[in-house]
Amino acid sequence: MTRVKVVGASGYGGVGIIELLLRHPEARIVTLVAQESVGAPVSELYPHLAGFCDMTIVAPDTPEAQEPADIVFMSTPDGVGMKASRAELERGAQIIDFSGDFRFNTEAEYAEYATRIGKNPVHADPALLPLSVYGAAELHRDEINPSRKIVGNPGCFAISCILGLAPAAASGLVRMDSLICDCKSGVSGAGKKLASAHHFPNRYETMNAYRLSGHQHVMEIERELTRVAGANDAGATALVTFTAQVVPMCRGIMSCLYGELVRETDETDVLSLYKEFYKDSPFVRVLPSNSPAGGTSFVRGTNYANIVVSVDKRTRKLRVVSYIDNLMKGQAGSALQCMNLLRGYPETMGLCSPGFYP
Amino acid sequence: MTRVKVVGASGYGGVGIIELLLRHPEARIVTLVAQESVGAPVSELYPHLAGFCDMTIVAPDTPEAQEPADIVFMSTPDGVGMKASRAELERGAQIIDFSGDFRFNTEAEYAEYATRIGKNPVHADPALLPLSVYGAAELHRDEINPSRKIVGNPGCFAISCILGLAPAAASGLVRMDSLICDCKSGVSGAGKKLASAHHFPNRYETMNAYRLSGHQHVMEIERELTRVAGANDAGATALVTFTAQVVPMCRGIMSCLYGELVRETDETDVLSLYKEFYKDSPFVRVLPSNSPAGGTSFVRGTNYANIVVSVDKRTRKLRVVSYIDNLMKGQAGSALQCMNLLRGYPETMGLCSPGFYP
Amino acid sequence: MTRVKVVGASGYGGVGIIELLLRHPEARIVTLVAQESVGAPVSELYPHLAGFCDMTIVAPDTPEAQEPADIVFMSTPDGVGMKASRAELERGAQIIDFSGDFRFNTEAEYAEYATRIGKNPVHADPALLPLSVYGAAELHRDEINPSRKIVGNPGCFAISCILGLAPAAASGLVRMDSLICDCKSGVSGAGKKLASAHHFPNRYETMNAYRLSGHQHVMEIERELTRVAGANDAGATALVTFTAQVVPMCRGIMSCLYGELVRETDETDVLSLYKEFYKDSPFVRVLPSNSPAGGTSFVRGTNYANIVVSVDKRTRKLRVVSYIDNLMKGQAGSALQCMNLLRGYPETMGLCSPGFYP
Amino acid sequence: MTRVKVVGASGYGGVGIIELLLRHPEARIVTLVAQESVGAPVSELYPHLAGFCDMTIVAPDTPEAQEPADIVFMSTPDGVGMKASRAELERGAQIIDFSGDFRFNTEAEYAEYATRIGKNPVHADPALLPLSVYGAAELHRDEINPSRKIVGNPGCFAISCILGLAPAAASGLVRMDSLICDCKSGVSGAGKKLASAHHFPNRYETMNAYRLSGHQHVMEIERELTRVAGANDAGATALVTFTAQVVPMCRGIMSCLYGELVRETDETDVLSLYKEFYKDSPFVRVLPSNSPAGGTSFVRGTNYANIVVSVDKRTRKLRVVSYIDNLMKGQAGSALQCMNLLRGYPETMGLCSPGFYP
Repeated sequence: MTRVKVVGASGYGGVGIIELLLRHPEARIVTLVAQESVGAPVSELYPHLAGFCDMTIVAPDTPEAQEPADIVFMSTPDGVGMKASRAELERGAQIIDFSGDFRFNTEAEYAEYATRIGKNPVHADPALLPLSVYGAAELHRDEINPSRKIVGNPGCFAISCILGLAPAAASGLVRMDSLICDCKSGVSGAGKKLASAHHFPNRYETMNAYRLSGHQHVMEIERELTRVAGANDAGATALVTFTAQVVPMCRGIMSCLYGELVRETDETDVLSLYKEFYKDSPFVRVLPSNSPAGGTSFVRGTNYANIVVSVDKRTRKLRVVSYIDNLMKGQAGSALQCMNLLRGYPETMGLCSPGFYP
Repeated sequence: MTRVKVVGASGYGGVGIIELLLRHPEARIVTLVAQESVGAPVSELYPHLAGFCDMTIVAPDTPEAQEPADIVFMSTPDGVGMKASRAELERGAQIIDFSGDFRFNTEAEYAEYATRIGKNPVHADPALLPLSVYGAAELHRDEINPSRKIVGNPGCFAISCILGLAPAAASGLVRMDSLICDCKSGVSGAGKKLASAHHFPNRYETMNAYRLSGHQHVMEIERELTRVAGANDAGATALVTFTAQVVPMCRGIMSCLYGELVRETDETDVLSLYKEFYKDSPFVRVLPSNSPAGGTSFVRGTNYANIVVSVDKRTRKLRVVSYIDNLMKGQAGSALQCMNLLRGYPETMGLCSPGFYP
Repeated sequence: MTRVKVVGASGYGGVGIIELLLRHPEARIVTLVAQESVGAPVSELYPHLAGFCDMTIVAPDTPEAQEPADIVFMSTPDGVGMKASRAELERGAQIIDFSGDFRFNTEAEYAEYATRIGKNPVHADPALLPLSVYGAAELHRDEINPSRKIVGNPGCFAISCILGLAPAAASGLVRMDSLICDCKSGVSGAGKKLASAHHFPNRYETMNAYRLSGHQHVMEIERELTRVAGANDAGATALVTFTAQVVPMCRGIMSCLYGELVRETDETDVLSLYKEFYKDSPFVRVLPSNSPAGGTSFVRGTNYANIVVSVDKRTRKLRVVSYIDNLMKGQAGSALQCMNLLRGYPETMGLCSPGFYP
Repeated sequence: MTRVKVVGASGYGGVGIIELLLRHPEARIVTLVAQESVGAPVSELYPHLAGFCDMTIVAPDTPEAQEPADIVFMSTPDGVGMKASRAELERGAQIIDFSGDFRFNTEAEYAEYATRIGKNPVHADPALLPLSVYGAAELHRDEINPSRKIVGNPGCFAISCILGLAPAAASGLVRMDSLICDCKSGVSGAGKKLASAHHFPNRYETMNAYRLSGHQHVMEIERELTRVAGANDAGATALVTFTAQVVPMCRGIMSCLYGELVRETDETDVLSLYKEFYKDSPFVRVLPSNSPAGGTSFVRGTNYANIVVSVDKRTRKLRVVSYIDNLMKGQAGSALQCMNLLRGYPETMGLCSPGFYP
């Protein structure tokens, strides 16, 4: 049995992990922490949970919030986890943080990341950085284990791009400085915070690109792809042109990923290469370009990534379309997958669900 | 273990019951029958099922389709179940039919029903009618038992109205000839069949009432409410003015139900009366008028009915707003609930899920 | 030429009237007043106006905001127009107010209205109340004329219900205390103000009833219907049970209106009666129950009301379904129609547009 | 006055051009031709047109359909216009064809186009090809004149890409073989024809890429960009990697366009270059990367293209995001703009509208 604390229980990340924990056979939620709705049952905030989880939300700085747990999910904004984690570690917890606080392992890397996106480059507890691992289970399965202290859960766009390009990078198929990630997300990716751009009448019939000056997920994509490429002698640093876009739907990321081919290939070869790469990854489905499974609705509510590969021979480009649910494989699903690995459970425990359709 | 056959596996009713059966601990799907996609795995038609259910769809008149089963779900249009059921019964199955074929128990009732909606009034196998029971578990729990042969699964609008008005009818709270059911459904209620009115560009930003001349669900509402009222000496035949409407969303029914009060009352009394009525019904949540749980998203993907009661003292009206997921409590969820009762399982088996949000 | 000032230019009511004024051949916008985006061109707030209206928004209490105008649209919340109107009247303006401030003509009526909805019952400038007329042009055409000082523009739900029931009330067709208005609105009806309930992920796939304890539009419906009924000796005070609902779309109101018939009738008779009633009303389309024009998309972006009549003989009910665009016939369209009458222009000037489809 | 015939009046292209013609001061619709709804008024098919256009639809092969007109809009699928145009030309008409039939000027080009997309490479009336011009008014303004016989109206994706990349191509800013067009469309782009993928429940919450093997609009993009580049000595043949995607909304195209920079530049320079290129093009708005006007809702219902430019210096890429309404600038709006030029009217006649918001 795993005792679980969720910090940031009132947001979409929080409710997402709560839903998953409720159907996990080995998890037991012991504490829900949030700054909002303190003192109220979480089922008042999220009425669909009535009868399933009626626990009271406690405030961060109260004694109740300090209850020890085996796993602490920090579903909190940047800057919170880096301050709160040490105390949890000392109480014996393993931590899975949903923000950018623990996606990098050195002060220098963190500083570059923070600088790129205009944040304070000084990490609040840099001694913890080496204890963390990037929570892309498909690439770091062995490092996410019972002795690991901290997991930096991937950004939603990031994991969709990384899963879509890692096999190509690993096999030296594309020029690493030619990568383009054109990413579209449903609105839930922006979270629960009210914003004029996401007010229903302003959003129902519009799509747009945003944050064109630089998105916070780019650097982790480049870091992971560079690492994967290096490990296979394909060398070279990944350089990613990235465009974040939002479309009028709730859940789903569709990332179109492009790279200049460095050798002759075709779809059949690419399919083989991708399937081989993911042969031990139960949540990745590698699909041909004419697959009927290309579409975010086919991964909605699930931890799957549907990866459609194609080759444009005329223009010598690899094109991969990566479909995930931004709140599942892009957030809570990946996090639970990591929890399973941290606790020594089967990787898929509590995550085997096809979702529902339509 | 229950062997299950799904006839009409390719429609929304079919995929809905398949999804539920996959997570039911005692069910095992043995045969999927449909006229469409014959010979293909159901996961080709519904790619989210890949890895969960890859069974091949078989055609109705083939030997494979005759495989014996313990439960046969007939997720088929009117007129199919009445012809196909006898053979299944003879092979030992209990039947749950999703159409209007078995919602009435006598030839005369069936004829009236069919006549009202402009169909052939002659039932194809009238001898089966007395073997069936109306599948509103909350009202017929005892009659849906291991010796029952056939269940006529309620219409989606019908169950939302019946659950919303039954306690009022049972307690003689309202004039039975004053009932108004103003019902709105998401588009999935119209099923998978393509229609100009449900083509996305024609539907995304419109709502409308339809079939104003008479809807097929009215008579079963009147029959059930009359029965409930009669059982409690509230007497009088229910007469329902009914309006079906469709709004641009996928899943959900919101029914606003009105009745003229025959005695002084207030919301507190009505709440008590409703809660008492449903005290043994795990899937009905009775809620006050200011409840945060009023909304179809809070029952989406679940078998719950959220029933919000209110009293307009100024106009002497009871008003109940009933929220369900039309594909769950309105179809597959109710059907599985009935299967549980037919097989002697706990009523909630395989149905305890909060769905997901947002 | 008519000089126009828009107060509350930054809201949906404001942008709606601006769009209409831009295509009105006799109107010229002279001043845009708002509390938000002061100092910025309105086209920065509403970029679709770029090149069409780039006027700077001025703050309410500045000298620029006091510029005289022939018509002042008060697209402001309750309580603003009642305070700001006297000064505008003294500068020679005629006023069209979008709030509840001028929908009633006596202190007592206003006090009842305000009390019903829990507001301060004291009107800030009661001497102005007798100068106003209710801006339902179809019912008050003659009173909305060049000598009129103030128009209280109808509530969006109210106008949909009033247009749908006035002919029945006028002809004594229904019991006036039996009326039920079951009204559904798109989200834009709630305006531009951010709210958790209208955050896209919370709203895209849900519908709900709200404010069950009493809606601010009920009293104006009852007042108008009572008046119309009285004028025709049908007598009796209208009593309306009203339910406000919101569905996941942007523009549109669908109101299902029910009344108990007091005499035998059929759809043909009702159609004649309604068509006769509206024979001089260019923006009302009276339609039979099987009309293809039943749907909010067919009035979207226009000032039309599509009114579908039907009779349920079995239950002795009149049922009318009234479709409007809540931001047009429900707000800016009606307001411009009133401006035309106030200024002696043809009633339809600047309003003849079919909108666009899909 | 211009007499206009619309062939294919029953589709979205047809209703789009009808709406525009109704507000054009010099156009008069004389004939509506379609294969569907023959004999019925177009306002029965499109009820919002009631009172605005109630003309009867006539069948293609009837005498009524042969009525002479000054302008014939062929809003028809591939293969229709190439057969029907000769007779219209002989009756004195100028033709604007919405399909791919007249987007190329030589048999060889047409054959290559048709071959690429798997169609019969033989044009049915090749002698007409030299009479046509590509209807991108911004690039072919002078060739679309009163002596021109045929205009091949651009594909919706194509015009969004061409407008977005032409200035870059013309100034030699990017490697012409490095172009990537990542294009997302609302569902109306797929037209009125029913399809399972566009059935509301299947579409409301999904996005997907499609036709990955090659889209019909690619070749016209490459042809136009090559031509523009050649005219300016930037030389080299354009090679475009193209991805068509569909998202759950009705109207709008957002194209993210990428090219490898061949020289140092920044956003300020690119803005100047683009503004200069479009200084005589009233329907193109060139915008900086932080513009609030980036979003399809700001061009909805209008003929505008909002073109947002940005430079990713880190990766040496130009990125342009092009926003249009696929049914306006992407179809009927462009077509009317061409009609204005063909008839010698001001280019913007009947097209000056901001649309409506929200």
